[in-house]
Amino acid sequence: MNRRQNFWVRYRVTATSQRDAETKAMQISIEQSVEMPPKTVPREAASNIGQVGKLRFIKDNEWHADIHFNKQLVDGDLTQFLNVLFGNSSLQPWCSLVDIDTDYLGSILNGPAFGIHGIRELTQVKKRALSCAVLKPVGASPVQLAEMAFQFASGGVDLIKDDHGLTNQHSADFETRVKKCVNAVRKAEQKSGKRTLYFPNITTSPTRVMQRFERAVDLGADGVLISPMLTGLESLHDIAKSETIPVMAHPAFSGSFVINECGIAPPVYYGKLIRAFGADSVIYPNATGRFSFNPEVCKQINRTCRSKMDPIKPAFPTAGGGIDLNTIADLVKSYGNDIIFLIGGSLYQYSAGLASAAKEFQQALTDYE
Amino acid sequence: MNRRQNFWVRYRVTATSQRDAETKAMQISIEQSVEMPPKTVPREAASNIGQVGKLRFIKDNEWHADIHFNKQLVDGDLTQFLNVLFGNSSLQPWCSLVDIDTDYLGSILNGPAFGIHGIRELTQVKKRALSCAVLKPVGASPVQLAEMAFQFASGGVDLIKDDHGLTNQHSADFETRVKKCVNAVRKAEQKSGKRTLYFPNITTSPTRVMQRFERAVDLGADGVLISPMLTGLESLHDIAKSETIPVMAHPAFSGSFVINECGIAPPVYYGKLIRAFGADSVIYPNATGRFSFNPEVCKQINRTCRSKMDPIKPAFPTAGGGIDLNTIADLVKSYGNDIIFLIGGSLYQYSAGLASAAKEFQQALTDYE
Repeated sequence: MNRRQNFWVRYRVTATSQRDAETKAMQISIEQSVEMPPKTVPREAASNIGQVGKLRFIKDNEWHADIHFNKQLVDGDLTQFLNVLFGNSSLQPWCSLVDIDTDYLGSILNGPAFGIHGIRELTQVKKRALSCAVLKPVGASPVQLAEMAFQFASGGVDLIKDDHGLTNQHSADFETRVKKCVNAVRKAEQKSGKRTLYFPNITTSPTRVMQRFERAVDLGADGVLISPMLTGLESLHDIAKSETIPVMAHPAFSGSFVINECGIAPPVYYGKLIRAFGADSVIYPNATGRFSFNPEVCKQINRTCRSKMDPIKPAFPTAGGGIDLNTIADLVKSYGNDIIFLIGGSLYQYSAGLASAAKEFQQALTDYE
Repeated sequence: MNRRQNFWVRYRVTATSQRDAETKAMQISIEQSVEMPPKTVPREAASNIGQVGKLRFIKDNEWHADIHFNKQLVDGDLTQFLNVLFGNSSLQPWCSLVDIDTDYLGSILNGPAFGIHGIRELTQVKKRALSCAVLKPVGASPVQLAEMAFQFASGGVDLIKDDHGLTNQHSADFETRVKKCVNAVRKAEQKSGKRTLYFPNITTSPTRVMQRFERAVDLGADGVLISPMLTGLESLHDIAKSETIPVMAHPAFSGSFVINECGIAPPVYYGKLIRAFGADSVIYPNATGRFSFNPEVCKQINRTCRSKMDPIKPAFPTAGGGIDLNTIADLVKSYGNDIIFLIGGSLYQYSAGLASAAKEFQQALTDYE
């Protein structure tokens, strides 16, 4: 196998024997490359047949198979890269994607333009964990949302994002909402004496999301929120590679890939794939929240987001769900400082108001610096 | 609940008791709408809180919960519709999407421009099942692919599609490939005396797929192939609503949604969602092939693709995988005539050549008219 010509992908294969695992590894190598019986492949295309590399027994009925693919299968098309990774093999009930050649990722994808270091520079927070409040719900007016943004920023929150369900509804159209929220945050910064970044949600039709991104930049947004499984992953990459403002990726519609037995290993999905496609901040469903990952998986996602993957920068793991003033101390201890905590509903339940809630939350983060 | 103001979505909920099912249904209704504790929702947005409707015990630990959502949550944004359907709830290990309000689908989505009736008109085949051959593999030259297309069309195949891995690789760039294959098919039609439609693959970056579609039309393609889970589903809709040429949807990257315990019920995914987003032909992994659906699921997909969903037209269910001369007779009997059979690898293994293989295949279809 020629390393310069190939890249590798690791699949978890469920099999009844070593021989069954070998057959299935072979099946993936063909399915994800030429997709026809090898003996019918014309001579000119023979080098495109996927090659089975290391096959390793893990435990019980589980094997890891490394498949080597010719880079010509992808040939610079990033959406086709996803197809080679997990197009038809996503339909196999015995196959999961568990690792990807990081050298190859670094050679074809730009990764985040800002990453952990860049977002720290923009927020002027050197070491501690960052906070992110959420503007919601759909149905609130731009004036109401801007008032929330003002309160959160007055309380000194580091980042504010739109709820991922705020798009361009009549109740708070994109243009008016972003204008008013940007103004509110800039005004509150005067009061708080610190930076707060506002990330409006730009998720919409894949063919129009780039326009909405450009409009967000023009309106003075400090970053954007996008749900890449809804817009297509390459939309995220197109936006990130403009290197204009940071991008936060939301996990909406990604669940089936990461919570099931068959799919993509969560650390690889969030920490490698979404990061390599350009997310500066990668939101994942936190263990203590309403969703399903256990704390160990969350720590693996954190580690993978921060891991060395040169030239791709580390991305900020961003934990969402079940985070409040009672849980934050333990979370910082267990997750470390290089993390953003999304605090949604819990801030709204605080009786003393949003600004006080934000202030107490910031204090808790500072305490654990 | 105001029917004109709301639409419903049915979720399968795994629960330990009626009470647990009620709690989880309530959780979905909030998660997919305002995403904050109802008592913190401002008055203006109160009508946007999702409402739990019928909750029905199915069996064992399984309930069906109908949730009613305010149409204002979507407000004309089709990508946001997907988010309300299965954004955050895709991350819940006890939640699957099992049905969608077809009246609402018909009110916001255009569905296929051609559908079963339109594709029959274009192919001039009134009643029998249709055949579709596949050009492959990646690595073959445009001349080689065009020669295959010529052979298949000479043998009288109804449709020819690109392999979904053929994009714009140097080995057969889009422009040259489509030109040569269109020419080859037109030439072969003179010989066969019947129509053959050629569908090149246009799957690429979500922000550039529309351009590639327009180029395909200009180059004389009779239809296009697209993998909507890779380009984002709304790209499919944007293309279909141009009403230019029919669109065939490929299931690449959709597996995690449909083969796992938690996800989207396959008949709903293929027969309602992909169809409503505009696919004239919906490819699904066939039971007798390399993939995982059982024959009953395949029949449900067929039925749902063909079901009445006015004003959305019926789409051609398109079975792929494990179809050859030995299985075709039984398949037509069991699946009926309103189906397209994809025949990939098996035609290439035929010793007498592609044209003869295609001819025999056509004969088998005609026999069961």
